[in-house]
Amino acid sequence: VPTTVNLRIPGPTPLPDRVREAGAQQMVNHRGPEFRELINRVTARLQTAFVTRNDILILTASGTGGLEAAVVNFLSPGDPILAVSIGSFGDRFAKIATAYGADVTKVDVEWGQAASADLVARELRALAGNGKPAKAILLTHNETSTGVENPLREIVAAVHAESPDTLLLIDGISGLGAVPFETDGWGLDVVATGSQKSWMSPPGLAMISVSERAWKATEAAQMPRFYFDLVKARKSMATGETPWTPAVGVLFAMDVALEMLEAEGYEHIFARHAACAAAAQSGLTALGFKLFAQPAHASKTVTAAWLPEGVDWSALNKLMRSRGLVVAGGQDRLAGQILRVGHLGDVTPDDVIAAIEVIGESLTELGREVDVAAAVSAARGAGAMPAATEERSPAVVSGA
Amino acid sequence: VPTTVNLRIPGPTPLPDRVREAGAQQMVNHRGPEFRELINRVTARLQTAFVTRNDILILTASGTGGLEAAVVNFLSPGDPILAVSIGSFGDRFAKIATAYGADVTKVDVEWGQAASADLVARELRALAGNGKPAKAILLTHNETSTGVENPLREIVAAVHAESPDTLLLIDGISGLGAVPFETDGWGLDVVATGSQKSWMSPPGLAMISVSERAWKATEAAQMPRFYFDLVKARKSMATGETPWTPAVGVLFAMDVALEMLEAEGYEHIFARHAACAAAAQSGLTALGFKLFAQPAHASKTVTAAWLPEGVDWSALNKLMRSRGLVVAGGQDRLAGQILRVGHLGDVTPDDVIAAIEVIGESLTELGREVDVAAAVSAARGAGAMPAATEERSPAVVSGA
Repeated sequence: VPTTVNLRIPGPTPLPDRVREAGAQQMVNHRGPEFRELINRVTARLQTAFVTRNDILILTASGTGGLEAAVVNFLSPGDPILAVSIGSFGDRFAKIATAYGADVTKVDVEWGQAASADLVARELRALAGNGKPAKAILLTHNETSTGVENPLREIVAAVHAESPDTLLLIDGISGLGAVPFETDGWGLDVVATGSQKSWMSPPGLAMISVSERAWKATEAAQMPRFYFDLVKARKSMATGETPWTPAVGVLFAMDVALEMLEAEGYEHIFARHAACAAAAQSGLTALGFKLFAQPAHASKTVTAAWLPEGVDWSALNKLMRSRGLVVAGGQDRLAGQILRVGHLGDVTPDDVIAAIEVIGESLTELGREVDVAAAVSAARGAGAMPAATEERSPAVVSGA
Repeated sequence: VPTTVNLRIPGPTPLPDRVREAGAQQMVNHRGPEFRELINRVTARLQTAFVTRNDILILTASGTGGLEAAVVNFLSPGDPILAVSIGSFGDRFAKIATAYGADVTKVDVEWGQAASADLVARELRALAGNGKPAKAILLTHNETSTGVENPLREIVAAVHAESPDTLLLIDGISGLGAVPFETDGWGLDVVATGSQKSWMSPPGLAMISVSERAWKATEAAQMPRFYFDLVKARKSMATGETPWTPAVGVLFAMDVALEMLEAEGYEHIFARHAACAAAAQSGLTALGFKLFAQPAHASKTVTAAWLPEGVDWSALNKLMRSRGLVVAGGQDRLAGQILRVGHLGDVTPDDVIAAIEVIGESLTELGREVDVAAAVSAARGAGAMPAATEERSPAVVSGA
């Protein structure tokens, strides 16, 4: 068993030492002044990262819990909604709305492709034409299962133009914080993300922003809810609390992680993730993989690629693991067909290059003829960051 | 600000160093072999603690999320249910069922009192007589808001005798693991608890056991659910996974905490909690407090007491905090009227005695005439454990 592991899945992500240590602090009263300061500080930093002045609520749950909160607080059974799915997580978002009784019209985009503003405008028009204008639209920002980033800004602009009363409910789980994203600038009503993604924090918290327009919608929303009741969460946050006991340790960790991210600067973080994605794309291509995502919309946080013809996922995965590399396989109908390299959070191009090398070595051991050195070189070339910032990483910037 | 804090609230509780360190381990793939071993080991240990062969599912949520799971998976809107409340958390359990459309008949027992088997049998009979026999009963094991432990065994026996088809849905959050409790022996269908209570772990996980009879009820249950869908959780657990990304770090911590608890032995743990409760009751009484709970049913994990006439909660709390003691105040209608001393998890009678001393000193500073030394002595006498085990604590037993 290798002593160091290169954990390259799209969350949970490796944690900086300072973050792990912060998460190990002794417990405090979750209804006392220390906690109040903590959650107020974290929430303010999240507003910076979301680029929003909207309320942000912190829920003890996975990102999926955040998606459930994004549905049940704003809608009623029977509400017509449009769900735009480009993969497993888009499917999940739609299933949540269906489970709670929404009248869901689902648009399925071919996996590997992004949705387009035109498609979305057309579907909204069709719904309105059928006498059931969409009360809300469910959109995925970055689809983790396929490694595709939707052109959210363009899609959202089309929604505003075509159907201005439609609430925009956004799965921002695996992209927000790693790529440019403007909650207020783009006019997003509800945005959910999860602590274990670009936030360099352990899993356990979902963070969700709510616009004034969305708060108004809660008044009429009849879907049942209790644990994920955001009105209760907002009321508690007025005194720096949460309605139910929160995952205090994860909040300790995220507090330091957000401090480190701010110290690095979001512009640099975005450049770093773009460089990691470029390294992954070039390296995998040089190893003979066919990238899964439409190139123009390839994700900056996770790169998916078809396994080469004849390569068995289990065999490849076993060899990669024996060399300390942990990547993700395919989900649902893509199981056994693709691999996914996560590159979000506390990651540098060097981590991705190391992954490319191990993938190449493992393919070689499987008897494939691949030029590992050339692939590493391609990844390194593509993943080069501006010289002034090349060596920066969150840990370095924070002085840890 | 004092350098050491005696955190004596009924959860989150202070964590042993080994537990904090375990929680700070580097992340692993939540769909890989390390995680599989981890969750299987934790689940098996929880079955020992629950004294059950039922499935146990681990959810990323607070205990309240566990209560929601205990309702929505087994019931349909309109189902007649009996909710027996002896305090804030009993109220909350009933509210969840109401939010999801159950036809809730609520019995309110005077706060400070326990429910009785007779009362419950009578209410079940009345429901059946009205043509709506209870599909389920909601019961609190240990009511954190009032410091009362229901005689659950007796109540449950009455339910089985009076209404054998009624599902028993139990809030076991703040007592299970600290006092004798038999999930299978008592015939409990669904039992929920939370990691931050007697389990010496950080908050973030709810653990819930489900009987075969309860699994059958899921097939007809129509309440909407997605994040808390236990059928999905059970299906994932068949391969050592969770449907959504779990709070991995909290699970790391709980793994070690459960190992420490098993090393100490549950019989000793129960004796330790009983000794802590006795120390709290005697010490507070000697300080002039009137205990809130009916003596025969006083909780072993949290002791509530009326503030003495004329003592202001904010003033008292400020003085206690300045001496490093953090206790809880009253909830809901008891805010400002009672204090609550938590003694569960990694706690010894000495921790409680130290709290008594600080409470006494703080009252003295407020100008009350109290004999602090006598109160400490009373607490020490009442909290004495059998000599052979007196010095044992979880940390000592585990060798940390």
